Amino acid sequence: MSASDSLLSETLKAFVAIVGDAYALSAPADVAPYLTENRGLYHGASPLVLKPGSTQEVSAILKLASETATPIVPAGGRTGLVGGQVPREGGSDVILSLERMNRIREIDTLADVIVADGGTILADIQKAAEENGRFFPLSLGSEGSCRIGGNLSTNAGGTAVLAYGNVRQLCLGLEVVLPTGEIWDGLRRLKKDNSGYDLRDLFIGAEGTLGVITGAVLKLFPQPRGHQVAFAGLKRPDDALALFERTSLLCGTALTGFELMPRIGIDFTTRHIPGVRDPLSSPHDWYALIDISTSDSAETAETMINTLLEEAFEAGLIEDAAIASSLAQQTAFWHLRESMSEAQKPEGGSIKHDVSVPVSRVPRFLAEADAAVLALMPDARICAFGHLGDGNIHYNISQPVGADKAGFIARWRELNAVVHAIVHAHGGSISAEHGVGQLKRDELIQSRPAIETELMNRIKRAFDPAGIMNPGKMVQVP
Amino acid sequence: MSASDSLLSETLKAFVAIVGDAYALSAPADVAPYLTENRGLYHGASPLVLKPGSTQEVSAILKLASETATPIVPAGGRTGLVGGQVPREGGSDVILSLERMNRIREIDTLADVIVADGGTILADIQKAAEENGRFFPLSLGSEGSCRIGGNLSTNAGGTAVLAYGNVRQLCLGLEVVLPTGEIWDGLRRLKKDNSGYDLRDLFIGAEGTLGVITGAVLKLFPQPRGHQVAFAGLKRPDDALALFERTSLLCGTALTGFELMPRIGIDFTTRHIPGVRDPLSSPHDWYALIDISTSDSAETAETMINTLLEEAFEAGLIEDAAIASSLAQQTAFWHLRESMSEAQKPEGGSIKHDVSVPVSRVPRFLAEADAAVLALMPDARICAFGHLGDGNIHYNISQPVGADKAGFIARWRELNAVVHAIVHAHGGSISAEHGVGQLKRDELIQSRPAIETELMNRIKRAFDPAGIMNPGKMVQVP
Repeated sequence: MSASDSLLSETLKAFVAIVGDAYALSAPADVAPYLTENRGLYHGASPLVLKPGSTQEVSAILKLASETATPIVPAGGRTGLVGGQVPREGGSDVILSLERMNRIREIDTLADVIVADGGTILADIQKAAEENGRFFPLSLGSEGSCRIGGNLSTNAGGTAVLAYGNVRQLCLGLEVVLPTGEIWDGLRRLKKDNSGYDLRDLFIGAEGTLGVITGAVLKLFPQPRGHQVAFAGLKRPDDALALFERTSLLCGTALTGFELMPRIGIDFTTRHIPGVRDPLSSPHDWYALIDISTSDSAETAETMINTLLEEAFEAGLIEDAAIASSLAQQTAFWHLRESMSEAQKPEGGSIKHDVSVPVSRVPRFLAEADAAVLALMPDARICAFGHLGDGNIHYNISQPVGADKAGFIARWRELNAVVHAIVHAHGGSISAEHGVGQLKRDELIQSRPAIETELMNRIKRAFDPAGIMNPGKMVQVP
Repeated sequence: MSASDSLLSETLKAFVAIVGDAYALSAPADVAPYLTENRGLYHGASPLVLKPGSTQEVSAILKLASETATPIVPAGGRTGLVGGQVPREGGSDVILSLERMNRIREIDTLADVIVADGGTILADIQKAAEENGRFFPLSLGSEGSCRIGGNLSTNAGGTAVLAYGNVRQLCLGLEVVLPTGEIWDGLRRLKKDNSGYDLRDLFIGAEGTLGVITGAVLKLFPQPRGHQVAFAGLKRPDDALALFERTSLLCGTALTGFELMPRIGIDFTTRHIPGVRDPLSSPHDWYALIDISTSDSAETAETMINTLLEEAFEAGLIEDAAIASSLAQQTAFWHLRESMSEAQKPEGGSIKHDVSVPVSRVPRFLAEADAAVLALMPDARICAFGHLGDGNIHYNISQPVGADKAGFIARWRELNAVVHAIVHAHGGSISAEHGVGQLKRDELIQSRPAIETELMNRIKRAFDPAGIMNPGKMVQVP
């Protein structure tokens, strides 16, 4: 049964007609994968998934949606962690998937840009850059399936933010279909353009609530010539912070990653992730992963990492360290770090926080949050790790050994409340890199200055007067 | 006669009462300096200059302005080149000068941030960073008098954009007083924060039309350890582009400046600017200034610049080159480049363009623009120079020798039209780094997609319903 033959309403049939039967899904089994997300926190309903093949088709869909007040949920690789891509439960939301719009439109190695459809898979962009002797630095766990339009809509971070910034810093121009169906061709490839309000950065990070990103101009970089990865054991977060400052001063922009991990995270990964080994011979309370990339030569990176570790050892900041001696070992060090979230699953329930504080406050934040959490739940197993150099900590709490998982997860909001209060006290963000979506919308509205929410609501109303774009996510317009 | 004793209206007296007599100027001689700009292109009128001493006073001023529909023109160092800081001619615009709000509020070298009032002079921020062993990279000709709120409101570029970006990339958070008088405390110092629409980047580059920037959190960087500046003579822009690509691949983020200059610019500066000498012994048609900064060691920069010039010479890209052998010589090389605009003044009238194109298009843009300009005016002396690495060319045209200055300047719009048409054909911007202000507003409205102007108008109305903020600049709300 094709979508247009089904029991769809006349309005929904008109949507199907835009993309053609072959690219509209309405059978429940076909629609099902679009109704949930990886963590299983959210589940919605939708009568129809549309897979347009061009910007013009996206435009026709949104024009009709505005005219018929049909809510639209844009979908990319659907790897988001805050429910932004999941339709609401009422069953009225139509899903607009960019999966067919996955072409790289152009690579210009003189201007060092790549132009891609919004539905292009991140790994395909990385690969195309590499094939042209260039480097596209956005890198995250889901890069094999996430799509660049989603990365832009959530202002994705990842592991190279320290040197290259979030994806916002990697984007020069956008093509966006507005909720009214109008197409904004902002596909500029200019390094400098001061010609009006910054529309580009408004769409970046808007989680599909202001329009659909159908194309983007992205910056390319020279491939690094030198790359070194070290794994250091240390006593406490204060030492990690001092080590970060020292590394930052020594390496400048060559410092491409500085990650913090606790002992319990090493225990979890070595226990549950096949092939993961502790790089150091004896245990330490905390660990830092240091990643250095140099553009001029391999020797520079080698000199840097050796100098750094020697000085840090003499200064008493680290207890032990290993430098990866091969590409395989570099990958293994990073794999340990990137498996840390996954490795918590076999340990039972996990209550998560994606927070940021000023870098200098990370040790105090950790101490205060640990004290508050343990006061509430003395047997909680805190596995706080993340991008120390960005001040971004994934403050995850694994359930006490042998505890009831459901009972533990039921305390999610209670534990959120104490951790987030400490984040706020340090001028931090409770939504550092994963975004707002459904998960954090209401808490943000409650915790931020009222004028900030009011300005966001005004923007939403100005761009999406019919209120059709990804309703219920990020903003809540009264 | 103090401002409150004068013949001011009751409304204006209420404004004076907010800041106090000592900080309100109404005598024509006191107000006069605020009514014009350096180039003498614009001249306006105003009954009153207010110099608030705090964010609270700015808030009270804007609240009263919204209530009484009094137009407000924010003023920083008033060094802008597009008339954004000049009141309109009608005499109704009140000037709000940030000059008293010039304090550095805090420096945090662990988080690598500096927090400053909107009226802080750029050079004071650079100096404070240096005194704390850090580097603030924003650098431009007017740094001794321009103020950071103005730099942010115009998204200033300058000479270090290649490595560090425009000031947008250097700002983590803002404090803004909205047109209604409400204060948005967005003074975050977080490297990662995905918690809603990007309000910060909307205020940056808005030229004071959406609110007044009263404070900012700025990023600090490690001081470079190695610094090298070279001056190379070459045949043509194509070679300069190839040299830029080679330099970029070799140096990566260590490449901090790549400037292009024509022979006529060297003639003008050596002729008119005291102390400027041609660094090379014989003349060349074009020149590149290459600036390299390294974070790890002085040796790295030295090796880089030597390798680069040797390879470039062998590849036939450059005809000759000099490496600055002392700090004084480095400063002299940059001084030559930075005097190039000033050196045109004694040569008579100059018609200017601040344009950008994709970096790879610079040579074609130059060839096509030269042909078009010379077809209209065969004796025009084209002095096109600028930030090749950013694709940003200051395409200046000096009057023919012995021509009538007024008659030449009268052809400003005519020459603009042919140059800007070529910029558009290459997907460029006619407003690269100096902004829109009064100078380019109407031309941008005519040349860009209607939907883009429409979105900007919607934002303006949403933020400034009374239309009091810097009216007549950047946007023209119907």
